[in-house]
Amino acid sequence: MKLFTFWRSLATFRVRMALALKGLTVETVTVDLMAGHQRDPAFHAINPQMLIPALVDDDGDICTQSLAIMEYLDELHPEPPLMPRAPRERARVRSLCLITVADSHPLVGPRVREHLQHAFGATEEQKLDWGRHWLIVGLDAYETALTRSSATGQYCHGDTLTLADLCLTSHCVGVQLFKGSLASAPRVAGIFERCMSDARIAAAHPLRQPGAPAA
Amino acid sequence: MKLFTFWRSLATFRVRMALALKGLTVETVTVDLMAGHQRDPAFHAINPQMLIPALVDDDGDICTQSLAIMEYLDELHPEPPLMPRAPRERARVRSLCLITVADSHPLVGPRVREHLQHAFGATEEQKLDWGRHWLIVGLDAYETALTRSSATGQYCHGDTLTLADLCLTSHCVGVQLFKGSLASAPRVAGIFERCMSDARIAAAHPLRQPGAPAA
Repeated sequence: MKLFTFWRSLATFRVRMALALKGLTVETVTVDLMAGHQRDPAFHAINPQMLIPALVDDDGDICTQSLAIMEYLDELHPEPPLMPRAPRERARVRSLCLITVADSHPLVGPRVREHLQHAFGATEEQKLDWGRHWLIVGLDAYETALTRSSATGQYCHGDTLTLADLCLTSHCVGVQLFKGSLASAPRVAGIFERCMSDARIAAAHPLRQPGAPAA
Repeated sequence: MKLFTFWRSLATFRVRMALALKGLTVETVTVDLMAGHQRDPAFHAINPQMLIPALVDDDGDICTQSLAIMEYLDELHPEPPLMPRAPRERARVRSLCLITVADSHPLVGPRVREHLQHAFGATEEQKLDWGRHWLIVGLDAYETALTRSSATGQYCHGDTLTLADLCLTSHCVGVQLFKGSLASAPRVAGIFERCMSDARIAAAHPLRQPGAPAA
Protein backbone atom coordinates (compact mmCIF):
# COMPACT_ATOMS: atom_id res chain seq x y z
CA MET A 1 0.00 0.00 0.00
CA LYS A 2 1.06 3.55 -0.73
CA LEU A 3 -0.04 6.58 1.29
CA PHE A 4 0.04 10.10 -0.15
CA THR A 5 1.00 12.28 2.76
CA PHE A 6 2.34 15.61 4.03
CA TRP A 7 3.72 16.32 7.48
CA ARG A 8 1.21 19.04 8.37
CA SER A 9 -1.97 17.30 7.15
CA LEU A 10 -4.23 16.52 10.10
CA ALA A 11 -6.30 14.13 7.99
CA THR A 12 -3.21 12.14 7.04
CA PHE A 13 -2.17 12.15 10.71
CA ARG A 14 -5.44 10.33 11.50
CA VAL A 15 -4.67 7.65 8.93
CA ARG A 16 -1.05 7.30 10.14
CA MET A 17 -2.35 6.64 13.67
CA ALA A 18 -4.79 3.99 12.41
CA LEU A 19 -2.07 2.28 10.38
CA ALA A 20 0.26 2.28 13.38
CA LEU A 21 -2.36 0.82 15.72
CA LYS A 22 -3.08 -1.92 13.19
CA GLY A 23 0.64 -2.63 12.87
CA LEU A 24 0.61 -1.88 9.14
CA THR A 25 3.46 -0.26 7.26
CA VAL A 26 3.02 1.54 3.96
CA GLU A 27 5.17 3.27 1.39
CA THR A 28 4.70 7.05 1.61
CA VAL A 29 4.67 9.67 -1.13
CA THR A 30 4.96 13.31 -0.08
CA VAL A 31 2.58 15.86 -1.60
CA ASP A 32 3.87 19.29 -0.57
CA LEU A 33 0.65 21.17 0.21
CA MET A 34 2.54 24.38 0.92
CA ALA A 35 4.07 24.32 -2.56
CA GLY A 36 0.67 23.53 -4.14
CA HIS A 37 1.71 20.10 -5.41
CA GLN A 38 -1.77 18.74 -4.63
CA ARG A 39 -2.84 20.55 -7.82
CA ASP A 40 -0.28 18.76 -10.03
CA PRO A 41 -1.95 16.68 -12.78
CA ALA A 42 -0.17 13.58 -11.45
CA PHE A 43 -1.91 13.95 -8.10
CA HIS A 44 -5.22 15.06 -9.60
CA ALA A 45 -5.16 11.66 -11.33
CA ILE A 46 -5.03 10.07 -7.87
CA ASN A 47 -7.61 12.29 -6.16
CA PRO A 48 -9.74 14.77 -8.13
CA GLN A 49 -10.44 16.54 -4.83
CA MET A 50 -6.72 17.43 -4.72
CA LEU A 51 -6.70 16.61 -1.01
CA ILE A 52 -4.70 14.13 1.03
CA PRO A 53 -4.64 11.47 2.32
CA ALA A 54 -5.06 9.00 -0.50
CA LEU A 55 -4.33 5.32 0.02
CA VAL A 56 -3.45 3.24 -3.04
CA ASP A 57 -3.72 -0.51 -2.76
CA ASP A 58 -1.14 -2.80 -4.34
CA ASP A 59 -3.45 -3.39 -7.29
CA GLY A 60 -3.90 0.34 -7.87
CA ASP A 61 -7.30 0.80 -6.22
CA ILE A 62 -7.52 4.26 -4.66
CA CYS A 63 -9.24 5.19 -1.42
CA THR A 64 -9.59 8.81 -0.35
CA GLN A 65 -11.07 10.61 2.69
CA SER A 66 -9.51 9.92 6.09
CA LEU A 67 -12.66 8.53 7.72
CA ALA A 68 -13.40 6.21 4.80
CA ILE A 69 -9.78 5.00 4.86
CA MET A 70 -9.82 4.39 8.64
CA GLU A 71 -13.08 2.42 8.47
CA TYR A 72 -11.68 0.46 5.51
CA LEU A 73 -8.53 -0.43 7.47
CA ASP A 74 -10.67 -1.45 10.43
CA GLU A 75 -12.85 -3.68 8.26
CA LEU A 76 -9.87 -5.27 6.48
CA HIS A 77 -7.78 -5.72 9.64
CA PRO A 78 -10.26 -6.17 12.50
CA GLU A 79 -7.65 -6.56 15.27
CA PRO A 80 -7.34 -4.52 17.37
CA PRO A 81 -10.85 -3.15 16.70
CA LEU A 82 -11.10 0.63 16.39
CA MET A 83 -14.91 0.62 16.23
CA PRO A 84 -17.37 -0.88 18.76
CA ARG A 85 -19.79 -3.60 17.61
CA ALA A 86 -23.24 -2.30 18.58
CA PRO A 87 -24.94 0.03 16.06
CA ARG A 88 -25.67 2.69 18.67
CA GLU A 89 -22.11 2.73 19.92
CA ARG A 90 -20.80 2.82 16.36
CA ALA A 91 -23.08 5.79 15.70
CA ARG A 92 -21.69 7.58 18.75
CA VAL A 93 -18.09 6.99 17.68
CA ARG A 94 -18.82 8.14 14.13
CA SER A 95 -20.60 11.27 15.32
CA LEU A 96 -17.60 12.14 17.49
CA CYS A 97 -15.28 11.56 14.54
CA LEU A 98 -17.35 13.86 12.36
CA ILE A 99 -17.08 16.79 14.79
CA THR A 100 -13.60 17.26 13.41
CA VAL A 101 -13.70 15.33 10.12
CA ALA A 102 -16.76 17.18 8.84
CA ASP A 103 -17.37 20.27 10.92
CA SER A 104 -13.95 21.57 11.93
CA HIS A 105 -10.99 20.44 9.89
CA PRO A 106 -12.42 21.10 6.38
CA LEU A 107 -12.91 24.73 7.41
CA VAL A 108 -9.24 25.34 8.19
CA GLY A 109 -7.26 23.60 5.41
CA PRO A 110 -4.93 25.37 2.96
CA ARG A 111 -7.53 25.67 0.17
CA VAL A 112 -9.92 27.51 2.50
CA ARG A 113 -7.22 29.83 3.81
CA GLU A 114 -6.20 30.57 0.22
CA HIS A 115 -9.78 31.31 -0.77
CA LEU A 116 -10.25 33.65 2.23
CA GLN A 117 -7.27 35.61 0.97
CA HIS A 118 -8.58 35.61 -2.59
CA ALA A 119 -12.20 36.50 -1.75
CA PHE A 120 -11.73 38.82 1.24
CA GLY A 121 -8.04 39.78 1.22
CA ALA A 122 -7.57 37.95 4.53
CA THR A 123 -4.18 38.56 6.17
CA GLU A 124 -2.04 35.79 7.67
CA GLU A 125 -3.30 36.78 11.11
CA GLN A 126 -6.93 36.72 9.99
CA LYS A 127 -6.45 33.29 8.44
CA LEU A 128 -4.93 32.03 11.68
CA ASP A 129 -7.84 33.54 13.66
CA TRP A 130 -10.32 31.92 11.29
CA GLY A 131 -8.77 28.48 11.72
CA ARG A 132 -8.49 28.79 15.48
CA HIS A 133 -12.11 29.95 15.71
CA TRP A 134 -13.48 26.79 14.08
CA LEU A 135 -11.14 24.47 15.95
CA ILE A 136 -12.20 26.00 19.28
CA VAL A 137 -15.88 25.69 18.30
CA GLY A 138 -15.22 22.00 17.65
CA LEU A 139 -13.20 21.65 20.85
CA ASP A 140 -16.09 23.06 22.91
CA ALA A 141 -18.49 20.63 21.23
CA TYR A 142 -16.17 17.71 22.01
CA GLU A 143 -15.84 18.77 25.64
CA THR A 144 -19.59 19.03 26.16
CA ALA A 145 -20.39 15.83 24.27
CA LEU A 146 -17.80 13.84 26.23
CA THR A 147 -18.69 15.34 29.60
CA ARG A 148 -22.41 14.70 29.15
CA SER A 149 -22.26 11.05 28.17
CA SER A 150 -21.86 8.12 30.51
CA ALA A 151 -20.31 6.23 27.58
CA THR A 152 -17.14 8.34 27.86
CA GLY A 153 -14.38 6.56 29.75
CA GLN A 154 -10.61 6.74 29.80
CA TYR A 155 -11.01 7.35 26.08
CA CYS A 156 -13.81 8.93 24.03
CA HIS A 157 -15.84 5.73 24.05
CA GLY A 158 -15.14 3.48 27.00
CA ASP A 159 -11.64 2.49 28.00
CA THR A 160 -10.17 1.40 24.69
CA LEU A 161 -9.00 3.38 21.69
CA THR A 162 -11.49 3.97 18.89
CA LEU A 163 -11.47 6.07 15.74
CA ALA A 164 -13.01 8.85 17.84
CA ASP A 165 -9.77 9.15 19.80
CA LEU A 166 -7.69 9.40 16.65
CA CYS A 167 -9.99 12.16 15.40
CA LEU A 168 -9.89 13.96 18.76
CA THR A 169 -6.09 13.70 18.81
CA SER A 170 -5.82 15.25 15.36
CA HIS A 171 -8.24 17.96 16.48
CA CYS A 172 -6.10 18.83 19.51
CA VAL A 173 -2.93 18.98 17.43
CA GLY A 174 -4.82 21.27 15.06
CA VAL A 175 -5.71 23.57 17.95
CA GLN A 176 -2.01 23.70 18.87
CA LEU A 177 -0.85 24.33 15.29
CA PHE A 178 -3.31 27.24 15.14
CA LYS A 179 -1.94 28.58 18.44
CA GLY A 180 -5.07 27.83 20.45
CA SER A 181 -5.37 26.42 23.95
CA LEU A 182 -6.94 23.25 25.31
CA ALA A 183 -7.40 24.87 28.74
CA SER A 184 -11.18 25.23 28.34
CA ALA A 185 -11.53 21.49 27.61
CA PRO A 186 -10.02 19.43 30.46
CA ARG A 187 -11.83 16.20 29.57
CA VAL A 188 -10.59 16.42 25.98
CA ALA A 189 -7.10 17.38 27.13
CA GLY A 190 -6.95 14.32 29.41
CA ILE A 191 -7.84 11.96 26.57
CA PHE A 192 -5.42 13.72 24.23
CA GLU A 193 -2.61 13.31 26.77
CA ARG A 194 -3.45 9.62 27.21
CA CYS A 195 -3.39 9.13 23.43
CA MET A 196 -0.09 10.95 23.02
CA SER A 197 1.47 8.74 25.69
CA ASP A 198 1.03 5.81 23.27
CA ALA A 199 4.33 5.61 21.40
CA ARG A 200 2.62 4.54 18.17
CA ILE A 201 0.41 7.63 18.20
CA ALA A 202 3.23 9.92 19.28
CA ALA A 203 5.37 8.73 16.37
CA ALA A 204 2.59 9.66 13.93
CA HIS A 205 2.51 13.31 15.15
CA PRO A 206 2.82 15.89 12.35
CA LEU A 207 5.92 17.48 13.87
CA ARG A 208 7.69 14.11 13.85
CA GLN A 209 7.30 13.59 10.10
CA PRO A 210 9.93 14.22 7.41
CA GLY A 211 9.88 17.84 6.28
CA ALA A 212 8.36 19.21 9.51
CA PRO A 213 10.05 22.21 11.09
CA ALA A 214 11.98 21.72 14.32
CA ALA A 215 9.39 21.88 17.14
CA MET B 1 -37.94 8.31 17.04
CA LYS B 2 -37.81 12.07 16.85
CA LEU B 3 -35.90 14.04 14.21
CA PHE B 4 -34.83 17.64 14.76
CA THR B 5 -35.17 19.24 11.38
CA PHE B 6 -35.44 22.41 9.29
CA TRP B 7 -36.66 22.66 5.73
CA ARG B 8 -33.46 24.16 4.30
CA SER B 9 -30.95 21.87 6.03
CA LEU B 10 -29.17 19.74 3.45
CA ALA B 11 -27.85 17.40 6.15
CA THR B 12 -31.38 16.76 7.43
CA PHE B 13 -32.49 16.20 3.83
CA ARG B 14 -29.99 13.32 3.63
CA VAL B 15 -31.46 11.72 6.74
CA ARG B 16 -35.05 12.24 5.50
CA MET B 17 -34.17 10.37 2.30
CA ALA B 18 -32.61 7.49 4.25
CA LEU B 19 -35.66 7.25 6.53
CA ALA B 20 -37.99 7.25 3.53
CA LEU B 21 -36.04 4.53 1.70
CA LYS B 22 -36.12 2.39 4.85
CA GLY B 23 -39.84 2.98 5.19
CA LEU B 24 -39.45 4.57 8.62
CA THR B 25 -41.56 7.40 9.93
CA VAL B 26 -40.49 9.72 12.71
CA GLU B 27 -41.89 12.59 14.70
CA THR B 28 -40.27 15.86 13.61
CA VAL B 29 -39.31 18.93 15.63
CA THR B 30 -38.49 22.10 13.72
CA VAL B 31 -35.37 24.08 14.67
CA ASP B 32 -35.56 27.38 12.79
CA LEU B 33 -31.95 27.92 11.71
CA MET B 34 -32.77 31.28 10.16
CA ALA B 35 -34.12 32.55 13.50
CA GLY B 36 -31.07 31.15 15.35
CA HIS B 37 -33.09 28.62 17.37
CA GLN B 38 -30.22 26.11 17.10
CA ARG B 39 -28.52 28.21 19.78
CA ASP B 40 -31.43 27.89 22.26
CA PRO B 41 -30.39 26.13 25.49
CA ALA B 42 -33.10 23.51 24.88
CA PHE B 43 -31.46 22.50 21.62
CA HIS B 44 -27.90 22.85 22.93
CA ALA B 45 -28.97 20.17 25.43
CA ILE B 46 -29.72 17.90 22.45
CA ASN B 47 -26.65 18.73 20.36
CA PRO B 48 -23.78 20.82 21.75
CA GLN B 49 -22.69 21.43 18.15
CA MET B 50 -25.94 23.37 17.69
CA LEU B 51 -26.36 21.74 14.28
CA ILE B 52 -29.10 19.58 12.83
CA PRO B 53 -30.05 16.84 12.21
CA ALA B 54 -30.31 15.13 15.57
CA LEU B 55 -32.17 11.85 15.93
CA VAL B 56 -33.54 10.95 19.35
CA ASP B 57 -34.47 7.34 20.00
CA ASP B 58 -37.57 6.43 21.97
CA ASP B 59 -35.46 5.88 25.08
CA GLY B 60 -33.84 9.30 24.74
CA ASP B 61 -30.52 8.27 23.19
CA ILE B 62 -29.31 11.00 20.85
CA CYS B 63 -27.50 10.54 17.54
CA THR B 64 -26.07 13.50 15.64
CA GLN B 65 -24.21 13.94 12.32
CA SER B 66 -26.04 12.98 9.14
CA LEU B 67 -23.55 10.33 8.01
CA ALA B 68 -23.46 8.67 11.43
CA ILE B 69 -27.28 8.67 11.51
CA MET B 70 -27.58 7.18 8.03
CA GLU B 71 -25.09 4.40 8.78
CA TYR B 72 -26.93 3.76 12.06
CA LEU B 73 -30.26 3.45 10.27
CA ASP B 74 -28.67 1.12 7.72
CA GLU B 75 -27.20 -1.08 10.45
CA LEU B 76 -30.47 -1.18 12.43
CA HIS B 77 -32.70 -1.71 9.40
CA PRO B 78 -30.61 -3.57 6.83
CA GLU B 79 -33.31 -3.77 4.16
CA PRO B 80 -33.05 -2.32 1.60
CA PRO B 81 -29.27 -2.01 2.05
CA LEU B 82 -27.84 1.45 1.44
CA MET B 83 -24.22 0.30 1.74
CA PRO B 84 -22.46 -2.44 -0.24
CA ARG B 85 -20.96 -5.42 1.62
CA ALA B 86 -17.31 -5.53 0.51
CA PRO B 87 -14.87 -3.31 2.46
CA ARG B 88 -13.45 -1.73 -0.68
CA GLU B 89 -16.87 -0.88 -2.04
CA ARG B 90 -17.94 0.48 1.33
CA ALA B 91 -14.83 2.65 1.34
CA ARG B 92 -15.71 3.99 -2.10
CA VAL B 93 -19.27 4.82 -1.05
CA ARG B 94 -18.07 6.51 2.14
CA SER B 95 -15.46 8.54 0.29
CA LEU B 96 -18.13 9.74 -2.15
CA CYS B 97 -20.39 10.65 0.77
CA LEU B 98 -17.63 12.65 2.40
CA ILE B 99 -17.07 14.84 -0.67
CA THR B 100 -20.18 16.68 0.41
CA VAL B 101 -20.55 15.67 4.08
CA ALA B 102 -17.02 16.74 4.99
CA ASP B 103 -15.55 18.89 2.25
CA SER B 104 -18.43 20.89 0.82
CA HIS B 105 -21.50 21.27 2.95
CA PRO B 106 -19.81 22.28 6.25
CA LEU B 107 -18.26 25.23 4.40
CA VAL B 108 -21.59 26.73 3.36
CA GLY B 109 -23.90 26.44 6.38
CA PRO B 110 -25.47 29.38 8.25
CA ARG B 111 -22.80 29.52 10.99
CA VAL B 112 -20.05 29.89 8.38
CA ARG B 113 -21.92 32.56 6.43
CA GLU B 114 -22.54 34.43 9.70
CA HIS B 115 -18.87 34.22 10.62
CA LEU B 116 -17.82 35.50 7.19
CA GLN B 117 -20.00 38.53 7.80
CA HIS B 118 -18.61 38.99 11.30
CA ALA B 119 -14.93 38.48 10.41
CA PHE B 120 -14.76 40.03 6.94
CA GLY B 121 -17.95 42.06 6.57
CA ALA B 122 -19.11 39.72 3.80
CA THR B 123 -22.18 40.95 1.92
CA GLU B 124 -25.15 38.70 1.05
CA GLU B 125 -23.77 38.39 -2.48
CA GLN B 126 -20.30 37.48 -1.24
CA LYS B 127 -21.77 34.85 1.08
CA LEU B 128 -23.73 33.37 -1.82
CA ASP B 129 -20.57 33.38 -3.99
CA TRP B 130 -18.63 31.69 -1.19
CA GLY B 131 -21.19 28.92 -0.83
CA ARG B 132 -21.51 28.39 -4.57
CA HIS B 133 -17.72 28.26 -4.93
CA TRP B 134 -17.34 25.32 -2.54
CA LEU B 135 -20.35 23.49 -3.89
CA ILE B 136 -19.00 23.73 -7.44
CA VAL B 137 -15.57 22.55 -6.27
CA GLY B 138 -17.32 19.52 -4.77
CA LEU B 139 -19.47 19.06 -7.88
CA ASP B 140 -16.38 18.95 -10.10
CA ALA B 141 -14.79 16.38 -7.79
CA TYR B 142 -17.93 14.21 -7.95
CA GLU B 143 -18.05 14.43 -11.73
CA THR B 144 -14.42 13.37 -12.14
CA ALA B 145 -14.60 10.65 -9.49
CA LEU B 146 -17.76 9.15 -11.02
CA THR B 147 -16.57 9.43 -14.62
CA ARG B 148 -13.21 7.79 -13.89
CA SER B 149 -14.47 4.73 -12.05
CA SER B 150 -15.86 1.59 -13.64
CA ALA B 151 -17.80 1.05 -10.39
CA THR B 152 -20.16 3.89 -11.30
CA GLY B 153 -23.40 2.68 -12.81
CA GLN B 154 -26.92 4.01 -13.05
CA TYR B 155 -26.22 5.33 -9.58
CA CYS B 156 -22.98 6.39 -7.85
CA HIS B 157 -22.07 2.81 -7.03
CA GLY B 158 -23.54 0.27 -9.39
CA ASP B 159 -27.21 0.20 -10.25
CA THR B 160 -28.81 0.45 -6.82
CA LEU B 161 -29.19 3.37 -4.44
CA THR B 162 -26.53 3.81 -1.76
CA LEU B 163 -25.77 6.50 0.78
CA ALA B 164 -23.52 8.08 -1.86
CA ASP B 165 -26.60 8.88 -3.97
CA LEU B 166 -28.34 10.53 -1.05
CA CYS B 167 -25.27 12.65 -0.42
CA LEU B 168 -24.93 13.51 -4.11
CA THR B 169 -28.61 14.45 -4.26
CA SER B 170 -28.26 16.80 -1.29
CA HIS B 171 -25.15 18.27 -2.93
CA CYS B 172 -27.03 19.00 -6.17
CA VAL B 173 -29.92 20.62 -4.31
CA GLY B 174 -27.31 22.71 -2.49
CA VAL B 175 -25.88 23.86 -5.83
CA GLN B 176 -29.37 24.89 -6.89
CA LEU B 177 -30.14 26.70 -3.60
CA PHE B 178 -26.89 28.66 -4.07
CA LYS B 179 -27.92 29.51 -7.65
CA GLY B 180 -25.27 27.36 -9.29
CA SER B 181 -25.55 25.12 -12.35
CA LEU B 182 -25.10 21.39 -12.82
CA ALA B 183 -24.29 21.91 -16.51
CA SER B 184 -20.58 21.16 -16.07
CA ALA B 185 -21.37 17.80 -14.45
CA PRO B 186 -23.56 15.68 -16.77
CA ARG B 187 -22.82 12.36 -15.06
CA VAL B 188 -23.78 13.82 -11.68
CA ALA B 189 -26.84 15.51 -13.16
CA GLY B 190 -28.03 12.21 -14.63
CA ILE B 191 -27.80 10.43 -11.28
CA PHE B 192 -29.47 13.37 -9.54
CA GLU B 193 -32.36 13.25 -12.01
CA ARG B 194 -32.73 9.49 -11.51
CA CYS B 195 -32.79 9.98 -7.73
CA MET B 196 -35.34 12.78 -7.91
CA SER B 197 -37.61 10.59 -10.02
CA ASP B 198 -38.01 8.34 -6.95
CA ALA B 199 -41.14 9.63 -5.22
CA ARG B 200 -39.72 8.89 -1.76
CA ILE B 201 -36.66 11.04 -2.45
CA ALA B 202 -38.66 13.77 -4.16
CA ALA B 203 -40.95 14.04 -1.14
CA ALA B 204 -37.92 14.63 1.12
CA HIS B 205 -36.76 17.65 -0.95
CA PRO B 206 -36.13 20.80 1.13
CA LEU B 207 -38.65 22.85 -0.86
CA ARG B 208 -41.38 20.31 -0.09
CA GLN B 209 -41.02 20.62 3.69
CA PRO B 210 -43.23 22.67 6.06
CA GLY B 211 -42.00 26.25 6.24
CA ALA B 212 -40.26 26.25 2.86
CA PRO B 213 -40.98 29.17 0.53
CA ALA B 214 -43.08 28.54 -2.57
CA ALA B 215 -40.68 27.21 -5.24
